Formats: sequence, structure tokens, C-alpha cells
Amino acid sequence: MIIQLSKAITSMEKEAIVSQIGGLGYKSNEVKTQYGNYLVAIGKKEFDIRKLGIMPGIADIHRVSDDYKLVSRKWKVSRTIIDLGDDVVIGDGSLAIMAGPCSIENEKQIESTINHLKANGVRIMRGGVFKPRSSPYAFRGLGVEGLKLWYSLAKKAGIKIISEVMQVSQIAAMHDYVDIFQVGARNTQNFNLLDELGKVDKAVMIKRGISGTIEELLYSAEYVFSAGNEKLMLCERGIRTYERASRNTFDINAIPILKEKTHLPVIADPSHGVGIREYVEPVALAAAVAGADGIIYEMHEKPEEAFSDSQQTLDFMESSILIKKLKLLHQLDSVI
Amino acid sequence: MIIQLSKAITSMEKEAIVSQIGGLGYKSNEVKTQYGNYLVAIGKKEFDIRKLGIMPGIADIHRVSDDYKLVSRKWKVSRTIIDLGDDVVIGDGSLAIMAGPCSIENEKQIESTINHLKANGVRIMRGGVFKPRSSPYAFRGLGVEGLKLWYSLAKKAGIKIISEVMQVSQIAAMHDYVDIFQVGARNTQNFNLLDELGKVDKAVMIKRGISGTIEELLYSAEYVFSAGNEKLMLCERGIRTYERASRNTFDINAIPILKEKTHLPVIADPSHGVGIREYVEPVALAAAVAGADGIIYEMHEKPEEAFSDSQQTLDFMESSILIKKLKLLHQLDSVI
Amino acid sequence: MIIQLSKAITSMEKEAIVSQIGGLGYKSNEVKTQYGNYLVAIGKKEFDIRKLGIMPGIADIHRVSDDYKLVSRKWKVSRTIIDLGDDVVIGDGSLAIMAGPCSIENEKQIESTINHLKANGVRIMRGGVFKPRSSPYAFRGLGVEGLKLWYSLAKKAGIKIISEVMQVSQIAAMHDYVDIFQVGARNTQNFNLLDELGKVDKAVMIKRGISGTIEELLYSAEYVFSAGNEKLMLCERGIRTYERASRNTFDINAIPILKEKTHLPVIADPSHGVGIREYVEPVALAAAVAGADGIIYEMHEKPEEAFSDSQQTLDFMESSILIKKLKLLHQLDSVI
Amino acid sequence: MIIQLSKAITSMEKEAIVSQIGGLGYKSNEVKTQYGNYLVAIGKKEFDIRKLGIMPGIADIHRVSDDYKLVSRKWKVSRTIIDLGDDVVIGDGSLAIMAGPCSIENEKQIESTINHLKANGVRIMRGGVFKPRSSPYAFRGLGVEGLKLWYSLAKKAGIKIISEVMQVSQIAAMHDYVDIFQVGARNTQNFNLLDELGKVDKAVMIKRGISGTIEELLYSAEYVFSAGNEKLMLCERGIRTYERASRNTFDINAIPILKEKTHLPVIADPSHGVGIREYVEPVALAAAVAGADGIIYEMHEKPEEAFSDSQQTLDFMESSILIKKLKLLHQLDSVI
Repeated sequence: MIIQLSKAITSMEKEAIVSQIGGLGYKSNEVKTQYGNYLVAIGKKEFDIRKLGIMPGIADIHRVSDDYKLVSRKWKVSRTIIDLGDDVVIGDGSLAIMAGPCSIENEKQIESTINHLKANGVRIMRGGVFKPRSSPYAFRGLGVEGLKLWYSLAKKAGIKIISEVMQVSQIAAMHDYVDIFQVGARNTQNFNLLDELGKVDKAVMIKRGISGTIEELLYSAEYVFSAGNEKLMLCERGIRTYERASRNTFDINAIPILKEKTHLPVIADPSHGVGIREYVEPVALAAAVAGADGIIYEMHEKPEEAFSDSQQTLDFMESSILIKKLKLLHQLDSVI
Repeated sequence: MIIQLSKAITSMEKEAIVSQIGGLGYKSNEVKTQYGNYLVAIGKKEFDIRKLGIMPGIADIHRVSDDYKLVSRKWKVSRTIIDLGDDVVIGDGSLAIMAGPCSIENEKQIESTINHLKANGVRIMRGGVFKPRSSPYAFRGLGVEGLKLWYSLAKKAGIKIISEVMQVSQIAAMHDYVDIFQVGARNTQNFNLLDELGKVDKAVMIKRGISGTIEELLYSAEYVFSAGNEKLMLCERGIRTYERASRNTFDINAIPILKEKTHLPVIADPSHGVGIREYVEPVALAAAVAGADGIIYEMHEKPEEAFSDSQQTLDFMESSILIKKLKLLHQLDSVI
Repeated sequence: MIIQLSKAITSMEKEAIVSQIGGLGYKSNEVKTQYGNYLVAIGKKEFDIRKLGIMPGIADIHRVSDDYKLVSRKWKVSRTIIDLGDDVVIGDGSLAIMAGPCSIENEKQIESTINHLKANGVRIMRGGVFKPRSSPYAFRGLGVEGLKLWYSLAKKAGIKIISEVMQVSQIAAMHDYVDIFQVGARNTQNFNLLDELGKVDKAVMIKRGISGTIEELLYSAEYVFSAGNEKLMLCERGIRTYERASRNTFDINAIPILKEKTHLPVIADPSHGVGIREYVEPVALAAAVAGADGIIYEMHEKPEEAFSDSQQTLDFMESSILIKKLKLLHQLDSVI
Repeated sequence: MIIQLSKAITSMEKEAIVSQIGGLGYKSNEVKTQYGNYLVAIGKKEFDIRKLGIMPGIADIHRVSDDYKLVSRKWKVSRTIIDLGDDVVIGDGSLAIMAGPCSIENEKQIESTINHLKANGVRIMRGGVFKPRSSPYAFRGLGVEGLKLWYSLAKKAGIKIISEVMQVSQIAAMHDYVDIFQVGARNTQNFNLLDELGKVDKAVMIKRGISGTIEELLYSAEYVFSAGNEKLMLCERGIRTYERASRNTFDINAIPILKEKTHLPVIADPSHGVGIREYVEPVALAAAVAGADGIIYEMHEKPEEAFSDSQQTLDFMESSILIKKLKLLHQLDSVI
């Protein structure tokens, strides 16, 4: 049960509500986000919801049958829109495009990427400065120094930044230099990280776990929201299956399912979703048609020289073509 | 190695070629289909292919590095087109739509379905008369009698029929009353069935196994082709994964991968691919954009009364909308 | 609901029972096997089971909440024992060992295998004469002629034969030369084959599908039983997962789960279950400890020269050691 | 390539070796653990290894073809033995048993568990004080205060403690009160956590990821070892598959495969591996027979009242029986 509290609620009124909920055998969790003040009440007993509804200080009240609550579309039918400033908006019916290299490598690479994005009207750049790598001996990224350099160049160009945060201690270090914190597929259930990202006022994109279920992804989002951050989006990036002809199996079903189950924007990552360069375009187009609010993909001036993920990275030419097709398709999509 | 024999080849010339191939340590399989006469030579030794190429009776010769040979796009870049007659063609760049109920139930149902298809310009009707069911106590279909009735009504309406064949003995019984034999997901590796379907001159659509790999699907197609039947298409219908929010996981990656690896038409089945009615449309549209040559889906006048698969079956209204969107999308697709 | 009919039931009594069941809204299926005569009634309505129980001609009556009925342990707690004759018995608390090559190759191979089995006190030999192969160009087995040769040699030696049947038409051809029909992992849901195997009085072992669920395996067994054959056993042989360090993932959980859910004997196939020779022994021992009624494994005098599956085939030395350990373990197992 | 440095190596000698390695195009990583001082050299060029071997300061040198190095059995054939003190040793050929509740709940629960363990001769107790939970509204554990209480009681009883650490900041807080840090299945690829656990001198047990491969588990172990901690063991705890009859699919194959690929001890967790109380025993016995160095399972005086995982938790009676059987089996195992 989600109880939206009115802005003018007094502490006495709140106490009365909490006490009433407790009396019904429910446990209440207070949640304060950028946009609202909620009580999430967890329990199973049946009672007349109107008894609560009439209490002073309550703006609205909703039963939510899903086990995740705040991220469910059962109580909030209108879709969450994330405004990154400077007219960069996600979830408002437009198709957000986020592109860039797997790893941030050096100034020259950042500049050429930014130029490519600007030439193609793309406003969000992706890139990793902390890289989760299976092997401890592999390149682990440029770190915060790389991020700062990237940020200064991107800001000048009016480009927003999405980058992966791997642990709690990086949140503060990265905070001023990113527009979207990305939670990677190996950290989808790093609950401490999620808790802490709930305490910042920055957008967060959570990737589905490597073998995570759709429900687990929603629960992970619930962690962030219930800790205080509504600026949240989810990302389908392919799941691990027995099939070996592709790196992962992009779960196209997950796009409409997530759109039905949650009010949060849903982003698709075709680069990891298929893992082979020549198939990134058709999978990206498919995801857009299936209803994704955005596409995030890997792109590099010279994919074969990229520090990581080169086999699934588009070059600038392929990227330009993909962007054009995505835009055309999205126009049609708005009609049909 | 695939050796295309010339039409005018003499039996002496052929013997000479077979003998030459044997001398090189290769095993040769002669394949005679509706469209050509081939020798498939299996072996590993390196040799100068021109020595063979100059032999009389050989039209063309191709090395094929894939383990499947005749269905590979490595030797035949042009796409296979299947002409069902009466201007119903699959694989020629158009988008084939095949729709109908899971099970054929009765005359009234057949008629209303045909009327719906005609009203929407759809030329191929799907339906099961032999139903593979997990439980021996479930409805197993109307059998050949149902098929005959269906065929007579469809023929009058200019509608082609695709229906599942479950065992060798049904091939002859069904032969005169179907336009496409469907091999179901439980029979993808029923090699005897595939062998026998290679001996008829009817189109065959092979569904990917419930947990079949893309490579296994291609091998299964190789069985049919190498037994003499080139009128072949493949169908992605979702694979079994750990995810429980959908019945299967539609493998959107498989569409462009199959289009790259084989010259055969690729059909998508979003009904089984996602298994939930409200998500069939977005998955169907995604598959079309990803490059599918056709879409096959389940549709029923009153899905809730269907004998089987009701939870994934569209009603006529939903079906009409889907068809319209597919056509619009396909027009755009031809442009971009 | 399973109604065991008394041996002395008259046809009038039976009609009365069927009619009574129909009146309750249940559909009844008559099943006549080697050992009994049953009515399986499928329906959902609640009623007083005693009203049926008192009818003449009924020996016993059981509600079975599982969707599969006859193979469920819910009605038959005592375990099914399969007597192959000549003191070869499966499911009586002993540990059945079945070993032999993947493919039957020639007389010499058969003889050396038989000698090895006799020397080690093993009474059942496995071997394929019809081989399901992904590629149509691979060796497909010696066929019925090979089987006849094998049978004549095995019979002389007092060895029983288990061999895979791939299609309905092979049943009659193989019938007199096998002691156990094996249904392979690609045919677990070949329902026509299962139906026909229900009509013979020979033991049948059904392998779990390559990605089949435990429940599907039980349903497949229900096909055979409900068609008239109770001499049935099930085989866990590993399932397809994302893990690539082994050929399949042997599902050790399936052993105790199957033993709980069905009264049929449960056999383990560690050769396919792990697919790598050096790990066959520990997986075999584990399966025995987990409660398997038998172990079936691949063994060859010279594995590296075997026509198929050489990478997972034990040599005679390894086989002898495995047999000794299995026997020791089984003795302990009977104690603990 | 792993270069074991001699204890008496001088810094000049070390520099010379590093420089020589660099000259060969290899990148060297210095690793200093409790037991040794190594250089791990990563590169691909072929060269005469003896040129390095003769340099002063080198004790031994090994090529390791695996991509993980220090945890590979390719260079260290003798098995790693972990001595926890007070005669509690893991990996020395004995079978380590670790048992206890999913969550530490209160003093009474700790005491009754300890009494049960002592009565059965078990020396290691498991229990969670930080619980990773899918839902943010679920019980998250007693935290460090609970751990301190537990530790004081366990120490008095001569019982060692294994408990899960979920994030870097907990390492210091838990350090003095645990004997083994457990890395849970959701943190197998939390590389920052692994790095930090490499810097403490406490034993670490890494659980395989929920859908982690065997190779990824070995890489995760390489993180800890290469950061300085050799007191490492691995735990198979079931993987996520499509099968729904069990919570996870215990990968019995992984036991012998891991024993072959690494010198680290291998522990089995049958509780999570099957997830259903009545099947924990057979899976535990199977894992022991397959070669596990230890078994960790969930146990509670009143499983139905446990705060978490009650459906897979043994009661004291079942636990006593399991321990007895494991000991008996292990005795036999040492013989066969």
C-alpha cells in the first residue's frame, strides 16, 4: 500500500497515520524523494482502505498488489519523466539516444566522439572510467581523473554523461561529473550500492543482471526509489542463455513487459544484447519499435583499436546510419 | 564443398566426379531437389579446387566452411524464394503474414477466420489438426478429417494452409491438403521426420527447438534440403530460459543471425515467443523490423473460448490492428 | 483420480462406473497394462469419493492431485520393479549397471564389450544402432542388421540389451532383439512414439529432454503408461544450461525429486550428464548416492577410436574401477 | 607465467627481473600473500623460459596456459590447505562441515545451534548478519552487533564462524569477529569487494554467481589471490536454469571440474543448490562423493519459524542424521 502524503502534513498527522497503519498490522516505511513524500505499508491484512484515506495529511492512497511497490505502474499510471536539464529529457515520448565508447581512453577519443554526437544531434554520451573486468589483469579504466576531463569537454559541448559506478565510495567522487549513474549488470543486486544511490539527486540507470529476472530488476529499482531517488530508469541488456551464436540473448519481451509493469523509462542496450557488431543495428531498431524509451550503444572511431568490447562496437559511419534509422522509425512509431 | 551439377550431366560424368572426390578422401552425398542436382562432399583435406572445377558436368563449385552446407549462405548469396502459387510468395522481400487459431475446432471457426483473413488481405492461414500436448489427456486435434474440411474452405477462398505434421505416417495423409508442412518445436530434431519431408515437393517450415540452438536449426534444415527439398523456411519461436515473466524468451538476435547465415526465409512466431496476448504485437513489430520475412501468430474470434493457447491468442480486432501496423512498418522498412 | 478395476469386473459394471464418472463431469480414460486395468478420470469437481468406491468392480480408488496420474507416487507408494528375466531386475533396491559403446560398430567390438561386462558382473549392455545425429552427413548406425548380430551374441552371454528407438516404424523391427527400448533426449516429447511404445510389452527407458523439465518427463511417461505399458523407467542425462565447462549440466537434484514424485525407477547417465571422460566417475558415484536405481554409461575398448562420443567414453580399465566403486558405494548406501 | 620469488630476493634482483619481463613484452604484476611472493606476467610472446629461470632471486617459474593464473592447478599441483586454528582445517583431505541458520536471530538461537554443533562434532558455524534481500522491505539482518554476540558465544565453544560480507565498508567492522568471510552469489563479481578481501589475512569463501560460469568463479578467486590473500575456497551453490521443480540446479559437475582446475578447496552448498528441505540430504551426500572438501548447509531448531530460507532449512534431527551419513561416506570415500 502506498500512501502519498500531502506537502502540508504536520508531524503529528504523520505520527497518527503511522500509528494507525501499525495498528492494522502493517509495517510502514517512510520514503522522501525529490518529488514526493510517501509511506509504503507492507502487510497482508484486509481492511477498509477508506478508514485511512480520510485521515488528515494524506493526499492519496493506493493498494499495490505487486511485491515491489513504488516502481509499480499499479499506483502511478503516468510515466516517469527524467529531465537532465538543457532540454535533455528521457521518458517523455521522445527516443533518447546514448552512445559512446566502452571505455574512456584519452582526450582525443573524447573529442572525436563528442563531435560525432553533435553532428548527429545526440545529447547523451556513454563511457566507462571504472571497468568491471573478469580478469584482474585487464585494463580497469582511467578513473575519476578521466571522468573530470571528459566532463569538462562534454559540458562545453552541451552533452550529458552516463557512466558506471561500481562501488559506494565512487558515488561521491563521481557525483559532480556525471548526469546519470549507471549500475552495471554485475551490480544489479549490490543492495548497498543501490541504497546509497537512493540518497543522491542524480538520475540512475539500472541494468538488468546478467541472469537477472525482470522481477529482480524491479526490486532493485525499488531499493533506489525507497531510499529517496525517483530519477530512475531501467535497462535491458541481454541475458545469459545456452545460445552461443550471440554473446547474450537480448530479451525483446522485456521491453513491453517492463513498460506494462513500471512507470519508469526503459532503455535498451543492443551492444551487449547481441554482442556482435553487425547485428547491433537490427536489434536496436527492434527495441525501439517494441517501445523502448531510449537506446544506449557502444561506438568508437576505430572499433578495432578500442580498449574493450571492440567486437560489438559500431564505427562512426554505422553509428550515423543507426541514428538516422532510429529517428525515422520513431517518427513512424508515434503515428502507428 | 558443394558441387552444382549441370542439367545435362551424363551418368558417366557423374561417376567420374564421385570417383575423383573419393580419391581426395572426401565422402560425397548426391542431392537432387526441385531446383538442382548437387554433390555435397564432406572431408577435410586441402586440394586445388580447380582440378575438380574443370571436370565436365560441373556447373559450379563452392567451398563451404560451415558444417551445414546446402542451407549456408556461404555458397548461395541470393535468397531462397518460395512460391506457393496464386501469387502467394515468401522470401521475395514482401512480409508474409500467417495467422489463425492454435487448433482447428469446427467449420464455423474456420469460416470466420477465413473471412477475417480475406478482409485484411492475409493469404496464409495457420491451424493445428494434430496437437502435440504434454498431457495424454488433453485435446489432440481434429485429425485429417478436420484438415480436409479446412482445406476445401480455404481453397475456395484462395487461402493457403500451414499445419503441423508430427510423424512420418501423417505426411502422406496430409500431403494433398496443406501448402506448408510445419515441423514443431518438439520435432526439430526428429531426424526421420525431416528425412521424409525432404522427399516431398511441398514447402516446409521448421520451428527452432524449445531449447534448440541456431546451429541445430540449420542442421535440421540441412536434413530436409539434403534429402531433396529446397522449399524450406525457418521459424524463431522463443527459447526456454530461466525468465518466468514470459512463456518463452523470443530470441530477436536470431532473426538477423539466421538471415546472415542462411539463404532460407526466416519467419517469426511472436505468439509462442512471448506467450502473453498483450505483448504479441510489440514483439511481432520488433521481429519485422529486425528483418523477418514473415510473421506467424495465433488469432481466434473468441480467444477465451479457444481449445488451446488462449492466453496468447489475439482477437480479430487486435489482429486487424497488428496487420495494419506490420504493413506500414514493412513499407518504411523497405525505404530505410 | 485413478480407479483400479478388479480383475473380475464385468463389462456391465465397467459401463456403470464410466457412466457414473461422466455424470460427475469427469472424462474417463480406460487403461489396460500388463499388470492392471485402470480408469483415469480427469476433472475438477469435488464430490464424495466413497460414492464411487462402493460400486462393484472397483478394487481401489485414489485421488491424485498431480496433473500426471498413473506415474505419480501419490497413488502408488510401492516402487515399480522391472523384471527383465534371467534374474536381471531393475528397481528392487539393487543398483542396475548398463554399459556399452555409444554406437554398435562391429562383431569384434560387441564381443570384447560383452567379455568386459561378464568379467565385471554387469548384466545389461547399451549401444546404438540408430543414431540421432545433428548433421545428416554423420554416421547413423548399423541399423537392424547390427542389432540382430548384437542380440545373438548378447543372448548367448546372458546379457540384456538396451538400445534407442527413434521412430514408430522401428518398434516392430527392433522388438524381438531388445530388452529395453530407449527413448532419446530428442524424442522425449515425440508423443506418437510414446503412444506406440505403450502398446508393446517391453521395458522402456525415457530420457529427459535436452532442456526438458522434470514435469515434462513425467508427462511423457504418462503417455506410455496410459497407452498400456507399465514397464517404464526414467533417465536423467543432464540438461542444457549456459555453462560451457561441461557438455551438459547433470541435474543431481532430479534424482531425489523424481524418486519422490514417481514410483518408476530412476536411472542416471553420467556420460551425457557431464560429457567429459575424466568426470564421468565422480558424477556416476554422486548419482548413485543421491538415490539412482541404475547407472548407464558409455564405454569402449579404445575410446579414441569410437565412432561417436569418444570424448565422454570410458575405457575398460576405467569402467572396471567405476563398477567396483559403484558396488562398494551401493553396499554402504543400503546401510546408511 | 608465474614467477615464485625467493624469500631472500633483493630489491635490485627484483627490479632486474621485472625489467627483463618488460623487455619480453610482458606486463608483470607483483603479488605478495601470506605464503609467498610472486610475479604474474601477462603476455603472449614465445621465449626461452630458461633465460628467466636462471636469474637470481627466482625460486621457481611456471607457464600457465589458463587465463586465470595463481588459482590454477597448472602451476600448483598440491592442494591449498586452510588452517583456521584450534585444529580446524579445510582442504587437508578431511570433510569440513559448516552448518547454521540462514540468519542470526538472537542469543537463544545461537546457543541452541552451538550446542547442536558441539554434540555432533561440527566445528564451523554459518549464519548471516547482513542479508542480501531482493526486496528492500525484508529483514536485513542483525548487523555487527549480532555478529559480536555470536562471536563471543562461538569462541567460548571452540566454534569457528563463517558469515557473508556484502560491501567493502563491512570488512573492517566484521574482521575481528569472523573466521571466514563469505562472498555471496550476488557479489561474486563485485570486484572492489574481492580486491579488498585480498588485503586481509582471513580465509575467504567465494560462492559461484547465481548464473556464474565456473571460469568466472576462478577469475573472481584470482582477484583475491592476486591482491594478496591465498586463504581462499570456492563454493558451488546451484545455478539458475529453466527448471522450476527446484530453487536452483546444483551443478554436481562443477565439483570435479573445479578440483581439476584449481588447487583451492571446493565447498558445496546443497541448501541453496536444491532449495527444498527434503532433498538437501541426498544432494549433500552426492557432493561429498563427487569430491567436495566441505559441505555448508542451513539448519535451524525450528525451520518453520526461521526468519529466512525456512523451506530449505534442516531441523536438528535431520542435521544430525546428515552429519552421521557424511562422516560414514567420507570414511568409505577415503578407501575407494
